[in-house]
Amino acid sequence: LLAPVDDRRLIFRILGQIKKTYLIVESGNSFFLIDQHAAHERIVYDSMMKDYTNNKKMSQALFDNTVITLTTSQKEKLLEHIETFNNVGWLIEDFGDELILVRAIPVNIKNDLNSFNVKDLLTTAIDQMSVDRDRRNWEEDMFALLACHSSVRAGQKLSWNEMNALVSQLESTDYPQSCPHGRPTMIEYDYKTVAKKFLRT
Amino acid sequence: LLAPVDDRRLIFRILGQIKKTYLIVESGNSFFLIDQHAAHERIVYDSMMKDYTNNKKMSQALFDNTVITLTTSQKEKLLEHIETFNNVGWLIEDFGDELILVRAIPVNIKNDLNSFNVKDLLTTAIDQMSVDRDRRNWEEDMFALLACHSSVRAGQKLSWNEMNALVSQLESTDYPQSCPHGRPTMIEYDYKTVAKKFLRT
Repeated sequence: LLAPVDDRRLIFRILGQIKKTYLIVESGNSFFLIDQHAAHERIVYDSMMKDYTNNKKMSQALFDNTVITLTTSQKEKLLEHIETFNNVGWLIEDFGDELILVRAIPVNIKNDLNSFNVKDLLTTAIDQMSVDRDRRNWEEDMFALLACHSSVRAGQKLSWNEMNALVSQLESTDYPQSCPHGRPTMIEYDYKTVAKKFLRT
Repeated sequence: LLAPVDDRRLIFRILGQIKKTYLIVESGNSFFLIDQHAAHERIVYDSMMKDYTNNKKMSQALFDNTVITLTTSQKEKLLEHIETFNNVGWLIEDFGDELILVRAIPVNIKNDLNSFNVKDLLTTAIDQMSVDRDRRNWEEDMFALLACHSSVRAGQKLSWNEMNALVSQLESTDYPQSCPHGRPTMIEYDYKTVAKKFLRT
């Protein structure tokens, strides 16, 4: 799920996972909750943006090519921007009528997506493209969308190795405090406030 | 340190200890911090009160009798109420002049107290006796004082067995939410509030 990392880079001491959604960690004069999904989104997004900036290959072939039916206007919009889609890892061909053929999807997305999910992802990206915006914004939204679909969800039990990898990789990102959508990845509870609540003086 | 208990009685799932002061536990739709000292005070206090009510022996002999110097008024006050002191586990004799001999101290207190600590404990109890109050209140204060001196402190690392015992014994007390001095033993953080902070909808 997450690549194992060198433990020496860990700043947070991990206590465990609660509600199968948050990690509890301790560091310095505070403890923190980390939202595992938001944190993973940040990690995947940053990794994609880095690869994209470095012109790395963003594509992974599907095991089976998938044929998808679009509306006329969706297909029009897609073909108009087909190069942009291919730049971020899609490999799409016109398949006649309202059909398109998907040969490859962007990297990082789990390759066990069924055709329904591939369609859902693609049409969301097409709809985002339709909104009036500059190219860079669309790409950032596209990567945020892909990161969301590629990240661990709330409700997913994580192993200790996965927790270690998540926390360590999060620490090494440039903006570890928030996910690409702007949601916080962590909440801090400082021990001074805790002591006051316990009437410790 | 703490007696081991049957794990099946645990309601809280323990995640670990932070700041060597609090235990983090999960239960239902919340996670909790437990103040290890306040929680242990509640456990020891309840146990002492139960033994006292059941007329159990409250005394433990010191390895070496301890001679303590008191002020004239402290000694007067002590001798005036000597039976009350002996009822809660002290065994004290007049040793002439301003001296007293301590043969036994109440149970539950660690028996490695040095004479300075024994004196500190005793004079605090004498001073509490001096305040205008009824007998029952003094006994409760005395047990709270003893419980405080007999409990794990903040800054003390606990093993998993000790954490399990603490949490389980706390759950089985009648007033697990506060220590005998009225301080909270636990703080609840409900997941609804946590989700709001993470902008989860």
